[in-house]
Amino acid sequence: MTNLQTTQADELKIKGKKAKEAAAVVGGLPTSLKNEALKAISQGLLNQVPAILDANRADLEAGRAAGLSASLLDRLMLDDARIQAMADALIDLTDLADPVGQVLEEWERPNGLKLSTVRVPLGVVGIIYEARPNVTVDAAALCLKTGNAVILRGSSSAIHSNTALVNVIRESLGSAGFPEDAVQLIEDTSRETAARLFRMDDVLDVLIPRGSAKLIRTVVDNATVPVIETGAGNCHVYIDESAEKEMAIRISVNAKTQRPSVCNAAEKILIHQNWPYTAELIAALQWEGVVVHGDDNAVKLADGVLVATDQDWGLEYLDLEVAVKVVSSTEEAISHINAYGTRHSEAIVTASIPEASKFQLGVDAAAVYHNASTRFTDGFEFGFGAELGISTQKLHARGPMGLPALTSVKTLISGTGQCK
Amino acid sequence: MTNLQTTQADELKIKGKKAKEAAAVVGGLPTSLKNEALKAISQGLLNQVPAILDANRADLEAGRAAGLSASLLDRLMLDDARIQAMADALIDLTDLADPVGQVLEEWERPNGLKLSTVRVPLGVVGIIYEARPNVTVDAAALCLKTGNAVILRGSSSAIHSNTALVNVIRESLGSAGFPEDAVQLIEDTSRETAARLFRMDDVLDVLIPRGSAKLIRTVVDNATVPVIETGAGNCHVYIDESAEKEMAIRISVNAKTQRPSVCNAAEKILIHQNWPYTAELIAALQWEGVVVHGDDNAVKLADGVLVATDQDWGLEYLDLEVAVKVVSSTEEAISHINAYGTRHSEAIVTASIPEASKFQLGVDAAAVYHNASTRFTDGFEFGFGAELGISTQKLHARGPMGLPALTSVKTLISGTGQCK
Repeated sequence: MTNLQTTQADELKIKGKKAKEAAAVVGGLPTSLKNEALKAISQGLLNQVPAILDANRADLEAGRAAGLSASLLDRLMLDDARIQAMADALIDLTDLADPVGQVLEEWERPNGLKLSTVRVPLGVVGIIYEARPNVTVDAAALCLKTGNAVILRGSSSAIHSNTALVNVIRESLGSAGFPEDAVQLIEDTSRETAARLFRMDDVLDVLIPRGSAKLIRTVVDNATVPVIETGAGNCHVYIDESAEKEMAIRISVNAKTQRPSVCNAAEKILIHQNWPYTAELIAALQWEGVVVHGDDNAVKLADGVLVATDQDWGLEYLDLEVAVKVVSSTEEAISHINAYGTRHSEAIVTASIPEASKFQLGVDAAAVYHNASTRFTDGFEFGFGAELGISTQKLHARGPMGLPALTSVKTLISGTGQCK
Repeated sequence: MTNLQTTQADELKIKGKKAKEAAAVVGGLPTSLKNEALKAISQGLLNQVPAILDANRADLEAGRAAGLSASLLDRLMLDDARIQAMADALIDLTDLADPVGQVLEEWERPNGLKLSTVRVPLGVVGIIYEARPNVTVDAAALCLKTGNAVILRGSSSAIHSNTALVNVIRESLGSAGFPEDAVQLIEDTSRETAARLFRMDDVLDVLIPRGSAKLIRTVVDNATVPVIETGAGNCHVYIDESAEKEMAIRISVNAKTQRPSVCNAAEKILIHQNWPYTAELIAALQWEGVVVHGDDNAVKLADGVLVATDQDWGLEYLDLEVAVKVVSSTEEAISHINAYGTRHSEAIVTASIPEASKFQLGVDAAAVYHNASTRFTDGFEFGFGAELGISTQKLHARGPMGLPALTSVKTLISGTGQCK
């Protein structure tokens, strides 16, 4: 073993052990103390703006030297407004109900045993994420509010910013009398260390990757720690034959163009063959600068439509690009979506309640819309007040993850000496 | 690729595809039809007793020839009574509420969007299990009741029994007008095929291993499909200084001896140093034939106690064997349990409500008991009416898994044209 390997193993081992010890403490702390800690971090960020911006500048310079794209540099960039937004989000979080300790069910058995299922923290949460440094603060705050310890592993491109932010968080926790070891940053951003982190079952209760489809796939393929998959959204808007023209066009254009780079943006438009306004819809998308691909029917119905290949139907463009397919029924739309979709957000536009209901029952996805844009799949839009990401898996949490997604349960049983 | 490999790949691919197609159908079937299917299987089993027993005899003969232990042969063995028990369990299952379609939450947003979160089936459930052929019927029935398709992979030692049982299940489903492809048995029991099954993300929504700690570890280490861990139980009974003598002895003896081979049996007894009856407790265990290991204090306090090594504290004996440790406080008991336990079932015996409460909050386990035996951690004892196993993980389901553990959720959103 080289010295470097020893150091890597030590960092994970030492920080893992500290996080686990801290989790045992923070899991039992009252909501008031957790809120004090969040307020202290908020204030700490505002007090340390110059130091944070200095560190961020080092990342930006390294990023420019390494030839990062303008959009990646923008994701990496912090400024006064973005730090203020992080500080504000921490204060907002103090207003949310604490799920820990909530009694979900209480019942009694004929033998007199009294049972109650209560929400408890998960323990130690691992978050693996890319560029955006605000995830460092958001994820740590959500974990702290729910009584968890957190191990953060950001990307090497944000290492200076992340280190500065975690320093502020830990100092603020310490000054609020809160165990600062509840937040740990893995400073070694090598792949080898990430691979070891994926298999730290003895420390981590869950791993949550946030970032590209590739990052998420790497975690799923290699982790032994349970993973919550977030992310990929090949979302569809299906326009049924009875869809109101103006509503169908408005929802399609919004879902596609409002923010094309996000997971709840529409990537495909399916149109019933009897809906008469396909040409106008495609023109409206093109007017907004959208490159439109289409199946043979769509190509015939409108101008300037590129021929879609079979590959297009599974693609997440994440850009001003869409593929349009003409279908003969709601059933065909459902089976196309279930074959090519990523189980994220799907919408039907229709004036028919039976068709809407058929679609909402038949489509297998976290969120299924009737007459609304897929863009609402979001913790804030759902009214959760906070969000850790959008789960595209079926176990534990599905869809936008609010605070309860960061908890587990425990059943407490009280008896008077009962034996089985 | 050899022919054998081609065949293996084909079996998984073909049965996986059929299961997925069947899942899309059974997910939408009404409770009444699912119950009819369960009744048909129950009747089918009773009609086919001779064929099932013939197949089971072939497994038993092969098992004897391969030198399987008496206890493994007993687990493998079917007789009239065991088949009747399976048939009865199917009828019991028809009485349970169907969780699918249950509305968990309904709310409205200020923009007029109406949201509702409803329970939906998981989709295709994979079950990997060892010897007991009754798991074939139990697991298939629980999956069918919850609208899931199931892919069963039993052990080679039970292949004749499992094949006969699945034939009966599929014929009965067909005769009840239910898609028989909802139940698939992987007949190739090679490790290579199991390894491929672990990574069939495109088909399986979850994998549930049921069996030895080794089997579960193999699945967790190799699966990319989300796993629900079941099983291992290094359970503790902690006797606090105020514990009533008779109750403490009764609970300890019951938890250890009533059925030592199961996961909710006690493996360790922790005793407060001021509790005066340690010698009597150890004598009572020894009287029941239990081999007692102990730390230095326990060895001093009673006769015939073997010296426990550090390894003992992490062991699941699954036999008439226990280790006893003297501790100085409830806090020490909690930290010992959190260090060595498997987060399954833990008990405190005490007359003190504050100590009980401290223990129930501080111990990290699926079920934490006050003045009752750990043996109650069981779906039937909890009143769930059915059980698919006991989850020892924190995500999705924790503790005994009833029917809701086999479901996910979906959020339906209805609007009037809202865009974000």
